[in-house]
Amino acid sequence: MKIGIIGLGRMGGNIARRLIRGGHEVVAWDRNADAVKELKGDGAIAAESLADIKSKLGTPAIYWVMLPAGAPTEETIEALCAEDCAEGDIIIDGGNTFWKDDVRRAKTLAEKGVHYVDVGTSGGVWGLERGYCMMIGGDKATVDLLDPIFDTLAPGVGSVPRTPTRGEECDPRAEKGYIHAGRAGAGHFVKMVHNGIEYGLMQAYAEGFDVLWGRNVDHLPEEERFEFNMAEVAEVWRRGSVISSWLLDLTASALAQDQKLSQFSGKVADSGEGRWTIDAAMEQATPVAVLTTALFARYRSRIDDMYGDKLLSAMRFGFGGHVEIPQ
Amino acid sequence: MKIGIIGLGRMGGNIARRLIRGGHEVVAWDRNADAVKELKGDGAIAAESLADIKSKLGTPAIYWVMLPAGAPTEETIEALCAEDCAEGDIIIDGGNTFWKDDVRRAKTLAEKGVHYVDVGTSGGVWGLERGYCMMIGGDKATVDLLDPIFDTLAPGVGSVPRTPTRGEECDPRAEKGYIHAGRAGAGHFVKMVHNGIEYGLMQAYAEGFDVLWGRNVDHLPEEERFEFNMAEVAEVWRRGSVISSWLLDLTASALAQDQKLSQFSGKVADSGEGRWTIDAAMEQATPVAVLTTALFARYRSRIDDMYGDKLLSAMRFGFGGHVEIPQ
Amino acid sequence: MKIGIIGLGRMGGNIARRLIRGGHEVVAWDRNADAVKELKGDGAIAAESLADIKSKLGTPAIYWVMLPAGAPTEETIEALCAEDCAEGDIIIDGGNTFWKDDVRRAKTLAEKGVHYVDVGTSGGVWGLERGYCMMIGGDKATVDLLDPIFDTLAPGVGSVPRTPTRGEECDPRAEKGYIHAGRAGAGHFVKMVHNGIEYGLMQAYAEGFDVLWGRNVDHLPEEERFEFNMAEVAEVWRRGSVISSWLLDLTASALAQDQKLSQFSGKVADSGEGRWTIDAAMEQATPVAVLTTALFARYRSRIDDMYGDKLLSAMRFGFGGHVEIPQ
Amino acid sequence: MKIGIIGLGRMGGNIARRLIRGGHEVVAWDRNADAVKELKGDGAIAAESLADIKSKLGTPAIYWVMLPAGAPTEETIEALCAEDCAEGDIIIDGGNTFWKDDVRRAKTLAEKGVHYVDVGTSGGVWGLERGYCMMIGGDKATVDLLDPIFDTLAPGVGSVPRTPTRGEECDPRAEKGYIHAGRAGAGHFVKMVHNGIEYGLMQAYAEGFDVLWGRNVDHLPEEERFEFNMAEVAEVWRRGSVISSWLLDLTASALAQDQKLSQFSGKVADSGEGRWTIDAAMEQATPVAVLTTALFARYRSRIDDMYGDKLLSAMRFGFGGHVEIPQ
Repeated sequence: MKIGIIGLGRMGGNIARRLIRGGHEVVAWDRNADAVKELKGDGAIAAESLADIKSKLGTPAIYWVMLPAGAPTEETIEALCAEDCAEGDIIIDGGNTFWKDDVRRAKTLAEKGVHYVDVGTSGGVWGLERGYCMMIGGDKATVDLLDPIFDTLAPGVGSVPRTPTRGEECDPRAEKGYIHAGRAGAGHFVKMVHNGIEYGLMQAYAEGFDVLWGRNVDHLPEEERFEFNMAEVAEVWRRGSVISSWLLDLTASALAQDQKLSQFSGKVADSGEGRWTIDAAMEQATPVAVLTTALFARYRSRIDDMYGDKLLSAMRFGFGGHVEIPQ
Repeated sequence: MKIGIIGLGRMGGNIARRLIRGGHEVVAWDRNADAVKELKGDGAIAAESLADIKSKLGTPAIYWVMLPAGAPTEETIEALCAEDCAEGDIIIDGGNTFWKDDVRRAKTLAEKGVHYVDVGTSGGVWGLERGYCMMIGGDKATVDLLDPIFDTLAPGVGSVPRTPTRGEECDPRAEKGYIHAGRAGAGHFVKMVHNGIEYGLMQAYAEGFDVLWGRNVDHLPEEERFEFNMAEVAEVWRRGSVISSWLLDLTASALAQDQKLSQFSGKVADSGEGRWTIDAAMEQATPVAVLTTALFARYRSRIDDMYGDKLLSAMRFGFGGHVEIPQ
Repeated sequence: MKIGIIGLGRMGGNIARRLIRGGHEVVAWDRNADAVKELKGDGAIAAESLADIKSKLGTPAIYWVMLPAGAPTEETIEALCAEDCAEGDIIIDGGNTFWKDDVRRAKTLAEKGVHYVDVGTSGGVWGLERGYCMMIGGDKATVDLLDPIFDTLAPGVGSVPRTPTRGEECDPRAEKGYIHAGRAGAGHFVKMVHNGIEYGLMQAYAEGFDVLWGRNVDHLPEEERFEFNMAEVAEVWRRGSVISSWLLDLTASALAQDQKLSQFSGKVADSGEGRWTIDAAMEQATPVAVLTTALFARYRSRIDDMYGDKLLSAMRFGFGGHVEIPQ
Repeated sequence: MKIGIIGLGRMGGNIARRLIRGGHEVVAWDRNADAVKELKGDGAIAAESLADIKSKLGTPAIYWVMLPAGAPTEETIEALCAEDCAEGDIIIDGGNTFWKDDVRRAKTLAEKGVHYVDVGTSGGVWGLERGYCMMIGGDKATVDLLDPIFDTLAPGVGSVPRTPTRGEECDPRAEKGYIHAGRAGAGHFVKMVHNGIEYGLMQAYAEGFDVLWGRNVDHLPEEERFEFNMAEVAEVWRRGSVISSWLLDLTASALAQDQKLSQFSGKVADSGEGRWTIDAAMEQATPVAVLTTALFARYRSRIDDMYGDKLLSAMRFGFGGHVEIPQ
């Protein structure tokens, strides 16, 4: 198919490349001219402006917007609609957009006859080679029309063993690595929850390794101390244990390089999806204590000097005359 | 009554003083001779050794051991039993002993005809003036016999308003500030849970003030910023709000001195009771997520460099190529 | 002062009564004519419609809107502004409004020269007698002008002991039970955090009593069992302990009536403030794990049949062949 | 090698079978004669009593005890030592023993010249085919001597991709699925933490699917509702997403059979390891809020009628006159 890719950063660039390798025609654009040039070298048709893309696409025009969520994506879609969209055109938002923005946009664009599709994309920097896991929201006809695109981007059946209980009547797309999750917004909703889970999984591993690492210290009594090798533990858990996972593979890889993880400061960032998952849970009154606790551990990691902790010390001093532990 | 007090630290010394003021005869001993001397000045009978106490007490001898939990208390009680105890004597442990140690000791001492009473004591440095809230475990006859001691130490009915629904048939001791909670171990069990709750309450206030304090910053957009005065907020909540409490009184007092709490580092200690409450909850499969989260917040406050956080960063780098937030 | 009260429910009615008792002139209105009639009997001037209030108030007109947050409050304020407001008039929102709605409204009303004041009110059904603890947002001149109103509604200095460290130069209003917390929105923000803390405090007590109650059972080994009396424990903790509070007073009162709490189902509601506190914390990246865990415990209390729990069982069956505990 | 297996339940029986298939000589015993008979049919040498095993083993005798942790294991090891052990013999505990019991036993047995090895085993009912992931504690010489046993039981390198950063100098055993984690106790310690992490991972998935499932309901406003297919979501996440894992494979398998999970009640059991992980964390003051929250969610799942929740309702009634949500 012919498709315009807007935004050629780490994600957009590789998505364009994977599509080109898969035989699609890609019209590429980015505010950064070098990124366009580089992708031209990889086989893309270079666009010179947002408006120029339209002229280089067929009918209907299909745009894949791959920009940071929020203003950059919003403004680009508005600009596309304002001038360049015709009835029947398709705008795909492949970024990390808040799902309620999808719901709103889909409604607005539908009034102009433009189809809106939201694609939550997982796979990170590995997607170019491994393929992208995609969760898609939008109307059925449009999602079906775009199937060749998704089929190329997805990992494909590959070497992942088949789920043994899965009947032949099940949608074959899931086994290739993409699903039509529902109406507009559904794709980013599922991707959002995916990220919420991701935080919880990561924190579970982090806490477990913290307990192990905490035994490799001098200040515990000798009989409570061990000398665990973090890299060996991570490696063995990859092999037949209940907790094997891709995140554990990455952990084993990092620990094999340096089990002290000296190059990392431990100030951990978080993105919108973790927070939105909590919001969605609150909206529907679903308890998600692990996902939230995991998010808050990241906040805490970035705070050097915690006001609330000082308040605890102040109260302890107040009722018990306790002075703080010497620094 | 005549009673021996062993351990004249911050708690033991004031308990002795309150008993003397209440007309009891106190035989005082401590490894620190100066502490004994000081208390003699306050009206106590000074003992020169652990053994010397016995000779200065009546029959049955009543000992109040007020030492750090664990080895100091254990060894002192063993020493008392080995040499100085006669059938009918009473040993009170007023410290922060683990309740299962009480259960064990009561059984061992009972074989010698010695009565063991565990007293969980709340009130901190304020107890000398305000009186001590006491939760008592032991056999009924002994606890009844000791009533004059507890009556003196307790706050008394004072100005705390009567619980309106409380019937006349209720045990009047609770309204004076002490209860017979049950058999040996019950006193320290209730005190342990009291401290578990205390951690939870403190953390709830700490988090709330953290949210307020976090609005007094420059890096938020102007319309999301406020200039809250922490001291005024704490003060107003003392007055007719649902969250008024003694801990809030102490908070207001600390904040009125310095709402920045600059003298505190925020490295917050914890004592055994918080942990034992979690253990007790796990023994009976009761979920106590708030109490545990509060305890863990204190652990976290004392860690500068968290291994698990580095692991999170390592995973994020692994799947997304994310580099950490610059320091 | 002369003031119109719109909304004569449990809160609004008592606020009107307390103002009348304090010598103010109250013009009362509610959609429910009986409520108006009843308040007329208590000394209010009855209004026959929203529009009628204006004619019965002075200049500037002062309105206190005391309605459920969201649509009822929003629509009422819109209606007041559309027709009945003149420059200089004052609209007070005393309900549980989301603070960002205050920020927006204050801006909109300011364009018409109308002053907007948000008052977070704590004290519940006890406010008529005890007075209301109030956290106020708005411009200084307007808040100062309204001082006689707040002074009447507040508890006053009363019998709450003075915070000893509080200097004479501090704002005397806090000690009477109200503060000017900042610009519009600040009042409801502080009240929101108050409620967030309230959830945390309540859950801390609930978990502690759960641990105690969980020992009064037959299925534990005898040496791990006690027979705690919940009413006596709550009562004694009111007396000199570190965890005494108004919430504990209420707990003691409920337990003195029936320590089994048989009349309660344990399905616990929550209101917007708890959720908004989490939102505010996420906006500023402040960890509030205890407040959130407390909120989620309420959600969980209302769920009979938890999908996620079934999923845990399904996984356990998957890897271990574990069948579930028989019901 | 020749080895005695004591305990032929789900785990012990399959371990024996995998060893026999691998060419080892297995002397099998169980209190249940049918289990012995069945294993004899699979090629084992049947023992008629605990004592009989010794006579059928070589020198040194090697025992693999595969019994429930606690009394069954303890008493069996005591019985072996009392009569049947000679200097140089080896006792392996392959169950889910508490690591401090290992430390104690290793010390006691060492006095008799008997070697103690603790093996934490993961892999569940899949181990016979997939192999067992093993974490081993004990002295180096003994663990080395037993290598043929572990090598047979482990999954082997198989199809799991090599960790790319792993140097050639790394211990090759980890890549085959077993490690020598350290001195006695280290094996069960690492296995314990493995299970702690397992709880956290499972709860993260459970919460995420709960959020998705919670959107498939009628009571939400239409624009907040979706119709997610749980089986398709689980399947697609197995394919190139960041959260792919073996637990997710099992989840997908369960959901493909019945996305409503109707056969499960959702009362979720827990075993000792989860609790011991919290204990270990408290011993070393490491915060593990996610692991603990996950454990507590299981406790909560088993409680129909929560005392603490009733207390929350009682407090709400106390301060606000709130009556509970109708059932």
